[in-house]
Amino acid sequence: MHLKVIGKVVNGVTESPHDWADVRSRIVIRPSYIDGLYRLSRFRHVWIIFGFHRQRDTVLRVHPRRDPRMPLFGVFATQSPTRPNKIGLTLVELLRIRRNVLTVKGLDAFDGSPVYDIKPSEDEIDF
Amino acid sequence: MHLKVIGKVVNGVTESPHDWADVRSRIVIRPSYIDGLYRLSRFRHVWIIFGFHRQRDTVLRVHPRRDPRMPLFGVFATQSPTRPNKIGLTLVELLRIRRNVLTVKGLDAFDGSPVYDIKPSEDEIDF
Repeated sequence: MHLKVIGKVVNGVTESPHDWADVRSRIVIRPSYIDGLYRLSRFRHVWIIFGFHRQRDTVLRVHPRRDPRMPLFGVFATQSPTRPNKIGLTLVELLRIRRNVLTVKGLDAFDGSPVYDIKPSEDEIDF
Repeated sequence: MHLKVIGKVVNGVTESPHDWADVRSRIVIRPSYIDGLYRLSRFRHVWIIFGFHRQRDTVLRVHPRRDPRMPLFGVFATQSPTRPNKIGLTLVELLRIRRNVLTVKGLDAFDGSPVYDIKPSEDEIDF
């Protein structure tokens, strides 16, 4: 399947920070998809599906957190970007939505990462 | 981005059941990716990223659960398959792994759905 880019991450982050939890990012959604954001602001947390766009290699057994003292795990048992499909999945705090721009906290994506989908937190769905 | 199929859903389900929560599915992983499953069995819950392979249309404002009595929401505020990228994301219970076959409970995917990624439940990561 071919994934369409629905938006891009803008956060100026080009190197891994000590802790992604405090990183604030803007997600700029393509204007043609703005209707898909209708009433998203009722959620405080949303899942972001994005691309590890700087990752090329696939490695099926990895040391978690690239720490060689850790035992090896299959890549599907980790969040390593060295997976067959370079897609990341992170639950973020949704701070604000203005037109086609989301401001989120805790997204572990570098500046310029493509965004492919946004889904509400299951815990907060009340319909 | 082009997604590679890492496996397929086998559950015999061709019509929406009353409740997906009790549906048991096998996920048959392509043998070339079997190393990626190493130590996945330590997790009781895993996220499955799969394709809504029977879905064609994109609709940006939808009634949740296709219930016309519900107010309209943007598709990114729902789990509707009518999203720009036809990818589903579901947390399932991992019942068993035998070689390249996972048995899971609660996956809301029709028989034959392509699987693109498996990620551990964040709550259960202890590394």
